Amino acid sequence: MKIEKIKGFRDQYPEDMEPRKKIFEVSEKVSESYGFRKIDPPSLEYLDLYRLKSGEELVGQTFSFTDRGGREVTMIPEATPSVVRMLVSRKDLPKPVRWFSFPKVWRYEEPQAGRLREHYQFNADIFGVDTAEADAEIIGLAARILDTLSLEGIYELRINNRNVMEYLFRDIGIEDSQPVFSIIDRFRKISRDEFYSELSKVGVSSGKADILYDLVSQVIPVSELPEKVKSVARNYDGIKELVERIVFTEKLIRTYTKSAVKFDFSIIRGLSYYTGIVFEAFDIKGELRSILGGGRYNNLAGLMSEQDIPAVGFGMGDVVIEILLRRSDRWSYARPGKTYYICTMSGEEREYAFGIMNRLRQMDINAIPDVSDRGLSAQLKAASGEKADFAVIIGRKEREQGEITLKDLATGKQSVVSTDDFLRSLSI
Amino acid sequence: MKIEKIKGFRDQYPEDMEPRKKIFEVSEKVSESYGFRKIDPPSLEYLDLYRLKSGEELVGQTFSFTDRGGREVTMIPEATPSVVRMLVSRKDLPKPVRWFSFPKVWRYEEPQAGRLREHYQFNADIFGVDTAEADAEIIGLAARILDTLSLEGIYELRINNRNVMEYLFRDIGIEDSQPVFSIIDRFRKISRDEFYSELSKVGVSSGKADILYDLVSQVIPVSELPEKVKSVARNYDGIKELVERIVFTEKLIRTYTKSAVKFDFSIIRGLSYYTGIVFEAFDIKGELRSILGGGRYNNLAGLMSEQDIPAVGFGMGDVVIEILLRRSDRWSYARPGKTYYICTMSGEEREYAFGIMNRLRQMDINAIPDVSDRGLSAQLKAASGEKADFAVIIGRKEREQGEITLKDLATGKQSVVSTDDFLRSLSI
Repeated sequence: MKIEKIKGFRDQYPEDMEPRKKIFEVSEKVSESYGFRKIDPPSLEYLDLYRLKSGEELVGQTFSFTDRGGREVTMIPEATPSVVRMLVSRKDLPKPVRWFSFPKVWRYEEPQAGRLREHYQFNADIFGVDTAEADAEIIGLAARILDTLSLEGIYELRINNRNVMEYLFRDIGIEDSQPVFSIIDRFRKISRDEFYSELSKVGVSSGKADILYDLVSQVIPVSELPEKVKSVARNYDGIKELVERIVFTEKLIRTYTKSAVKFDFSIIRGLSYYTGIVFEAFDIKGELRSILGGGRYNNLAGLMSEQDIPAVGFGMGDVVIEILLRRSDRWSYARPGKTYYICTMSGEEREYAFGIMNRLRQMDINAIPDVSDRGLSAQLKAASGEKADFAVIIGRKEREQGEITLKDLATGKQSVVSTDDFLRSLSI
Repeated sequence: MKIEKIKGFRDQYPEDMEPRKKIFEVSEKVSESYGFRKIDPPSLEYLDLYRLKSGEELVGQTFSFTDRGGREVTMIPEATPSVVRMLVSRKDLPKPVRWFSFPKVWRYEEPQAGRLREHYQFNADIFGVDTAEADAEIIGLAARILDTLSLEGIYELRINNRNVMEYLFRDIGIEDSQPVFSIIDRFRKISRDEFYSELSKVGVSSGKADILYDLVSQVIPVSELPEKVKSVARNYDGIKELVERIVFTEKLIRTYTKSAVKFDFSIIRGLSYYTGIVFEAFDIKGELRSILGGGRYNNLAGLMSEQDIPAVGFGMGDVVIEILLRRSDRWSYARPGKTYYICTMSGEEREYAFGIMNRLRQMDINAIPDVSDRGLSAQLKAASGEKADFAVIIGRKEREQGEITLKDLATGKQSVVSTDDFLRSLSI
């Protein structure tokens, strides 16, 4: 009977899971040093919680089902609704709250490059304040995690702001922003003609479409944002303060990272949900989907409770990061410290050998015993397979005389030393 | 609209998730130093994979459902079938294979003390050898993880062996071992009378029941096992070699831990699956369900493939460990290193202050900015809430003169120092 894994899921063997630890460890360490604290949401939630944020369209893309108690539940397709549910059910927490998590999430969709049905997703949020400082801290954290993963220089940050867009829409006479956001969200996937014809369908004249096309096809330094907005908006004063906040945010981000930060009017990040700044990180080669993304979402807590709690955060999956690390030859891992492989000539020496082995381990030294009944040459071959640095070989003579034979597996040199001297030399 | 979490699931806030990191980190670090390598199985598998190991009885206790493609799938209720599936689908791996994992697992059952619907479960296995050394390495790893979690002295190990039991059954004239195992498995939950009457129902005479009762009600030092078996078995020679292997295994375990290792004939661990040694760790107060458990299972790979691969392993949930750590006041966590909280008198100083903050962070020093627009006293209060050691206070004067005001939050003392001197003193 042969049973396969489910399509789109990963069997993560050591050669993949060990390098992946770097992603977990760096994210966690950087977040913690920034004052973020780790939480962990349940993997299963009532589907209504996710409907609340994303509507019915998401439901078809979830691993959701009716449980034995007859209620609709879903394996979480992202973490944010769970995290906000956890937030609003704890009124005692002093604000701002800074949380991060790194759960598995699941989406029922066709697997494709950079996108699986199961992956790990890092999330970080600041709840309770709506300031440029909080926006910068979240974007800076995102950048710093990428930089610490040695990805500096191969990505850039692109930011936009929903409120700027909505202001410009109104200013040029577009009242209903949602359908326009929806078209801009697909800007980089459709042709210029499609862009114009879709805008025309939702009642945007070709003159206004010209303005929009010009806007969303440009990626500009954030410092040029005031000039750009002035050139489009008939009334700049109404948006001046917000534009200045964005320029200030970018100045703060500059204290976190040397990576490029650009303003990109085509960054929308889906339809509803976000209420202010939105951002993504892209590989500068432009070959991959976005590395991470997030933004300000001040309304979600209010949908779940009577509390209005402003929020800014981002999410980062492990799949695209893996691709980037592989591409730059950083998808590797070595057991830290030296490793000793313990070989014995017969069962008679095992107890003695295991005693030495466990002394090594108690000194925080890696030690691996051969647990088979094979001959020495097969044991030494296994030692190399385990990437050990030394073999500790124990036969009857060694045991009787309180010695070991130490073999350096890199040079092949071996020497007989007293066990006490050997252990003493390592404990220094 | 108020949406609760699902019953039996945990919202893990920082005060729980941070101390839990110790369980993850210790398990991982010890395993790795023992030469075990980390894997990660999918969280969702075809239900047939789990039926294969556990039969239909388990299915009612799983979060299983029919997916959009019409196939029965389950959130994994344990890791072993997935791990063995991963093993048999990679014939290239040199044996023995030593793997560990720490996935979330899910069981649909009534939540009770020490048992939730979702928990983390550590697993470690050695595949490919059937030796006392492999058994000892697995049990020793389990013990060493508990010892490193500072639980030494509050638990003991109990071992048994399915083959010894079956031999004794046959020796005293019981041919069908399965129903007897099933009764012994519940020995500590039923009365003496129930034990006898249930054995009688499956055709075990009261004379044989006397022998069994005597056997399973005793917990003996492993060194006394030969005498005990001799006293029960009419023919000791047929079991001598196995008994000696068990005694030898215990001698090897002694090189790993000072914790007690006892032979307990009542340890069964369910009905099928195990084929040799079985073991559990219990708190010595006897108040909790077992802390961890495992054993040898040489047949599972053969059920999934044409490969017979002997295996020994164990599983350990995080829930009982949490209870033990709480009980011994070890359920705590502090951010490593000193933490600086960055306060500013107005927005004018933010860019300067964020520059200093990010210099600190680049030196691997924890730094948390106040991202609100509140006054200094509220900021200092927040600094204490974040358990910061120092506040770095920056106003116009500090900014203009390249200085900071450093406040020791423990003593309340504060001093003005040049920013360069401050950063230099920390970089040494």
